[in-house]
Amino acid sequence: MTLAPLDASKVKITTTEHPSEPKPNDQLVFGRSFTDHMLTAEWTAANGWDVPEIKPYQNLSLDPSAYVFHYAFELFEGMKAYRTVDNKITMFRPDMNMKRMNKSARRICLPAFDSEELIALIAKLIQQDKRLIPEGKGYSLYIRPTMIGTTAGLGVSTPDRALLYVICSPVGPYYKTGFKAVRLEATDYATRAWPGGCGDKKLGANYAPCVLPQLQAASRGYQQNLWLFGPENNITEVGTMNAFFVFKNTETGKKELVTAPLDGTILEGVTRDSILTLAKERLDLNEWTISERYCTIGEVSERSKKGELVEAFGSGTAAIVSPIKEIGWKGEPINIPLLPGEQTGPLTKEVAQWINQIQYGEVEHGNWSRVITDLN
Amino acid sequence: MTLAPLDASKVKITTTEHPSEPKPNDQLVFGRSFTDHMLTAEWTAANGWDVPEIKPYQNLSLDPSAYVFHYAFELFEGMKAYRTVDNKITMFRPDMNMKRMNKSARRICLPAFDSEELIALIAKLIQQDKRLIPEGKGYSLYIRPTMIGTTAGLGVSTPDRALLYVICSPVGPYYKTGFKAVRLEATDYATRAWPGGCGDKKLGANYAPCVLPQLQAASRGYQQNLWLFGPENNITEVGTMNAFFVFKNTETGKKELVTAPLDGTILEGVTRDSILTLAKERLDLNEWTISERYCTIGEVSERSKKGELVEAFGSGTAAIVSPIKEIGWKGEPINIPLLPGEQTGPLTKEVAQWINQIQYGEVEHGNWSRVITDLN
Repeated sequence: MTLAPLDASKVKITTTEHPSEPKPNDQLVFGRSFTDHMLTAEWTAANGWDVPEIKPYQNLSLDPSAYVFHYAFELFEGMKAYRTVDNKITMFRPDMNMKRMNKSARRICLPAFDSEELIALIAKLIQQDKRLIPEGKGYSLYIRPTMIGTTAGLGVSTPDRALLYVICSPVGPYYKTGFKAVRLEATDYATRAWPGGCGDKKLGANYAPCVLPQLQAASRGYQQNLWLFGPENNITEVGTMNAFFVFKNTETGKKELVTAPLDGTILEGVTRDSILTLAKERLDLNEWTISERYCTIGEVSERSKKGELVEAFGSGTAAIVSPIKEIGWKGEPINIPLLPGEQTGPLTKEVAQWINQIQYGEVEHGNWSRVITDLN
Repeated sequence: MTLAPLDASKVKITTTEHPSEPKPNDQLVFGRSFTDHMLTAEWTAANGWDVPEIKPYQNLSLDPSAYVFHYAFELFEGMKAYRTVDNKITMFRPDMNMKRMNKSARRICLPAFDSEELIALIAKLIQQDKRLIPEGKGYSLYIRPTMIGTTAGLGVSTPDRALLYVICSPVGPYYKTGFKAVRLEATDYATRAWPGGCGDKKLGANYAPCVLPQLQAASRGYQQNLWLFGPENNITEVGTMNAFFVFKNTETGKKELVTAPLDGTILEGVTRDSILTLAKERLDLNEWTISERYCTIGEVSERSKKGELVEAFGSGTAAIVSPIKEIGWKGEPINIPLLPGEQTGPLTKEVAQWINQIQYGEVEHGNWSRVITDLN
């Protein structure tokens, strides 16, 4: 018997009887309020994907023995839809998120699906609630595709039932009043990810264990952890973002943009990939080297002392970039320069602008912006 | 303001209107059917523990943005209640499970509780459905305490809402027709746990990532993974159980029972602890050494070649012990002797009997068996 594929053309739409009013932009809190509708699609090992549904946002009703509650059969994606300056609704590189979501699913034996079908379904969901997508630079619709294993039973095995669902939250700029550079604690006592693990996948399992180290760092005045790995103390990620450093060789004057290589412990960030691509296209490669290489906290500390550490930032879907001003390491601060009177370094600021301009339709970049609907 | 503690005396009991009939013993499948009632207790950061409830087994209704679905804020315990030979209902070392559950909760910023209060609540739950506890040696009631973070929202932070719940499944002997020794694949390409991670806690996060490696081992004819760690290939666990090996020195004739030390990567198994305690009490320590030490797959392989590997087994709540007959390592089988015509080695069999006798009330051991109710 052929298993049914995920099929956007079959979607069943039930609209809410109580449409909500858009919230004022200044009341938008990340991931706290949601649009009127959600998308769901059930899967069974016996039949494949059932008819997808767009329906009023509502609670999930699950057996208390469902795998998702016991064994972390769960994965998610984070992506955004934008209202562009020319009044279209677009998604930014959704194919990248769908590819990663399928990789996450395979890693924990949840079902794969055709990426373009889920993009089409998300587009229909967004279309349904398009009036709730906030207007203005920095505002967007955060989209949260999620998949959970719903088999009812306590044996640890491959789920034979799953639920794919998508919810959407209207969000404002991560930094409401411009950038705010953060202080990090370089963390060697807790480990986010390891070889042979699943730190490169967007699984729920990677998140809960990182909250206690974050609280511990916060108790010492740091906003986030700078995750280190291994005997060399390689820098891997910052909080839930990829990490970038900028060095300037004091002898040659040449600069290097560095981020960790995708060795299986690093989340394959869409923003990370976009930054690397744009940096290679737009920076003067006579002056710049763009590197995916291991970089230790020791190197960062030493090059800081030599005046060669010129910038650092995290990258992710929520904030695009998050400038870093200080790293605490073994009780000593490593200070990172910022532009005079600003909370960011020059490349960090430039990178944010590059991506912002593409996301809000001011600049085109290949097929990175996918038009969902033209409101003109 | 003082936060309310978990308080068993306040429990609100709503009994089912549709009590079920006990299933015949031969129809009991591990964790697939449940008793008529469940226990729930909600917690909020603002007020602490709400009134616990015993109520008919029913679905959980949760916001699709609840933390448990996205960031694996979830932990559980596995414990059992027994119908003893003198017709009492007992639990086996519940204080150990409660202590571990509180440790798991602290690791992912979920709320702690008074262990004795939860034991009292579980006792009331079991009391409610005591007629569904199967009779007979090897039969028991599997108890699954679970805690999930239920805050609705997508920011990754400490949950300010949680749900503690307990469900119970009548179960039969793990091996219906006596022991069945398993073949393991020594696994160095996937890593279950890491220093600075959370492999010693009973978190959902530790389980989903282990199912794919198990399928891969199964595709090569092995039932479970023998998890290795580090450049030395230390043996850590087997599947979801602790691992024990028995060596016999061919020169001295002395025997050693070995399991991995609790270094933060090893689950603190209650059965593991019980086996170590009983072995120290009951084996002749002139002949035996009981060791919590690192043991590499290399050592196992070499000592097998010398005829010094005499037994191996996994330990856990579900099976008590699971005899091992073969380990595949780098394409070569390491064979482990079994008793002639049996699927177990002599110590493995003895250990299972020791624990069985305590669990079914034939032998007393300190306060390991906690009487919940006397049916006489």
